[in-house]
Amino acid sequence: MYIICMVSKNQKKLIRSLKQKKYRKQHGLFVVEGIKVIREFLETHYILQQIFVLESEIHLFKEVDRNKLNTVSVLELSQLSFLTTPQKAVAVFKISNGASQYVSSGLQVVLDDVKDPGNLGTIIRLCDWFGVIQVICSVETVDCYNPKVVQATMGSLTRVKVMYTDIEQYIKVSKLPVYGTFMDGINVYQKQLPQEGLLIMGNEANGISPKIAQLVNERIAIPRFGTTQKTESLNVATATAILLSEFRRA
Amino acid sequence: MYIICMVSKNQKKLIRSLKQKKYRKQHGLFVVEGIKVIREFLETHYILQQIFVLESEIHLFKEVDRNKLNTVSVLELSQLSFLTTPQKAVAVFKISNGASQYVSSGLQVVLDDVKDPGNLGTIIRLCDWFGVIQVICSVETVDCYNPKVVQATMGSLTRVKVMYTDIEQYIKVSKLPVYGTFMDGINVYQKQLPQEGLLIMGNEANGISPKIAQLVNERIAIPRFGTTQKTESLNVATATAILLSEFRRA
Repeated sequence: MYIICMVSKNQKKLIRSLKQKKYRKQHGLFVVEGIKVIREFLETHYILQQIFVLESEIHLFKEVDRNKLNTVSVLELSQLSFLTTPQKAVAVFKISNGASQYVSSGLQVVLDDVKDPGNLGTIIRLCDWFGVIQVICSVETVDCYNPKVVQATMGSLTRVKVMYTDIEQYIKVSKLPVYGTFMDGINVYQKQLPQEGLLIMGNEANGISPKIAQLVNERIAIPRFGTTQKTESLNVATATAILLSEFRRA
Repeated sequence: MYIICMVSKNQKKLIRSLKQKKYRKQHGLFVVEGIKVIREFLETHYILQQIFVLESEIHLFKEVDRNKLNTVSVLELSQLSFLTTPQKAVAVFKISNGASQYVSSGLQVVLDDVKDPGNLGTIIRLCDWFGVIQVICSVETVDCYNPKVVQATMGSLTRVKVMYTDIEQYIKVSKLPVYGTFMDGINVYQKQLPQEGLLIMGNEANGISPKIAQLVNERIAIPRFGTTQKTESLNVATATAILLSEFRRA
């Protein structure tokens, strides 16, 4: 198989624009980097638009339609990539929006304005590990198709359902018990945790917002063991790791 | 108090250079950003070199020697800062090297070539939360005075002892039980964990190296709960979060 292709200026411009949410929304496209993660997306319902790959690696995409496969130089790849250390391939997929139904049971994570892409990516990866199939995000939570989120999820985005909605309404309508962490909450290690529930995680700077806090019926806390009392809080992603572990170990 | 000061070209150049390890080593200096974190460093044994702060915030550093205090404009601050969104102050402190003694007891985290600054910073912050007073890093582990590490620790670097050494020798000499995570390890939720021990955490891509793996006498694993078997691993910082939580909840 021999494909000669140059990346056009317009293609470059389009791909670079997908760093911004407004252009992802406008074009309905997002970027995935790295052969392994691209291969995971290929095996899902996501529709491929184009792959840009080093010639040395093109054999890894044998089954892909030739019209969607482009060989690029290392230089071209670095111009397409959002990473400091580019991978060997960059792909563009269509954003899957749609007919996806909410799941009303099980353990679910609800994010109240999580802003950092690395945190959202890590949380989605954790949900995948701990068998949480749905993450409900407030509309102010960072977009899950942000390239930094996609990168941090390491392919977990193909397996975890991420929905954006008015979380206040979502929580009110749900019949599941609502858990949230607060400084004055009950020691989570001493609490019997259920198999089903909503676990609310708050914004990096402000925690859970007041209007959401009043919907929480199970206030929990991760105890601090340090001798100094200065460590103010755990990062939202590491707190999620500890809490999901507690829910699942039960 | 009224201090008029411009940041000289040489000062700017010096501070910018501290992004790189070789210059931090050459000058024996590192950078701390943000008023809150700078204040935490001021209360420790770290020796302040200079603070660059917006005039509106200078009253927050009343006790600081005027010769070490410089007002800067928003523009100047952005030129000194390593952050995308600069804080209101940047400070330069002397690297504390030295006479610090190793602690031979308690729960300790040992890092086998952790490369990502965000991961090291998060791990140091976790250690602070869970009362782990010493982190032992292999010489190939990212430098704890890297600006991204300092930022991610949120001041925890002032409370947790971080030592760089030949970890193989360190583990061999230590009398503590040695824990490490492996795919085929024993389910950590079913294991009785001690109050003291070395917890080895491996490199992001390769895990624990073979020569260190053979020194581990307690092989543990965090079970996966997802239905698909594709999630390969947890990020090293989130795995550390879950394991430290398990050690402390016991």
